[in-house]
Amino acid sequence: MPTDQDPRFLRSREAILHAARELLLEKGPTAVTHVQVAERAGVGRATVYRHWPQAELLLVEVMATVPMPFFDEPTVPTRDWLRRELTAMARQLDLDDVRAVATTLATNALWDKTMDARRAQFAGILGTRLAAALDDAQARGEFTPALPSRDAAAMAIGPMYYRSTIERTSTDEDLIEAIIAALGTWSPSPR
Amino acid sequence: MPTDQDPRFLRSREAILHAARELLLEKGPTAVTHVQVAERAGVGRATVYRHWPQAELLLVEVMATVPMPFFDEPTVPTRDWLRRELTAMARQLDLDDVRAVATTLATNALWDKTMDARRAQFAGILGTRLAAALDDAQARGEFTPALPSRDAAAMAIGPMYYRSTIERTSTDEDLIEAIIAALGTWSPSPR
Repeated sequence: MPTDQDPRFLRSREAILHAARELLLEKGPTAVTHVQVAERAGVGRATVYRHWPQAELLLVEVMATVPMPFFDEPTVPTRDWLRRELTAMARQLDLDDVRAVATTLATNALWDKTMDARRAQFAGILGTRLAAALDDAQARGEFTPALPSRDAAAMAIGPMYYRSTIERTSTDEDLIEAIIAALGTWSPSPR
Repeated sequence: MPTDQDPRFLRSREAILHAARELLLEKGPTAVTHVQVAERAGVGRATVYRHWPQAELLLVEVMATVPMPFFDEPTVPTRDWLRRELTAMARQLDLDDVRAVATTLATNALWDKTMDARRAQFAGILGTRLAAALDDAQARGEFTPALPSRDAAAMAIGPMYYRSTIERTSTDEDLIEAIIAALGTWSPSPR
């Protein structure tokens, strides 16, 4: 069996990561399966299993190499942008594969340093982006926060994450509106 | 190796569950480890591993047999009771073992029917209890809800669960107050 330093081992790892990245960008997270990655990378399925016994962890790895699609490029009014972003995230959290990635990441982060770094990276990006957009909305007079902006990500994503992974139901429009209202007071029309 | 029908196998399973239950009730979830359960049950550590390779899953199993300690026995005013309950839950979610149980349960529920039944049981109990307490507060005129009571558990527990398992920091008083305010409007003093 090849070792970590074996050129073939490193080559197949690179080919797998490249294929997984293409599949994620072209078809979304549900396409990053052992079968599809093996086919796209031109390696055997057993090789993919050898590198990543859990497809979820391969997806986490490759997600860290592509731009995170949430809370990116805020537009004005912030409330409308936020509603769209939360709706997009809620639809992703309806997918079993995304649920599996989120909970697998959270579980593995407890004992695996690489996974913990990925977890911190995802949490940090989401928290920083949302806080910046809300701070901007406040500066423009669109928004008066009900909580410190560092708490906004937990308040906004937390209910959808709990609903998806613990209650295992879908986040509907009403819950999204309740989340938006929980973040603070929005002016009727932005100035 | 004994089979599922072997009396010794069933006996050791019962002894392990009994020991795990005692440890959970006496010392809390962090005491339900392979080592402590084996010692208390008077069986070898390997036997505990054979029944439950993951201590988290043993803990989930045994948690389902003891009364769930959260949102039980509401007192008046509801707001003060809720603050105490959320604070107790936040302190539990500070513990790595509790984090591991929550995320392991959510992950395993995706492909294991027994775990999915446990997940549904926990989510159902928490959601029903919280909704009942809030409905009662509303009936007494203490509270005007901002969202349907079926959404209250996601709004209340979700932010703490996200903070604990994804952001991996502690839920402080400020976030708890923000959660209480997000659920609805509270009258200054209960009538």
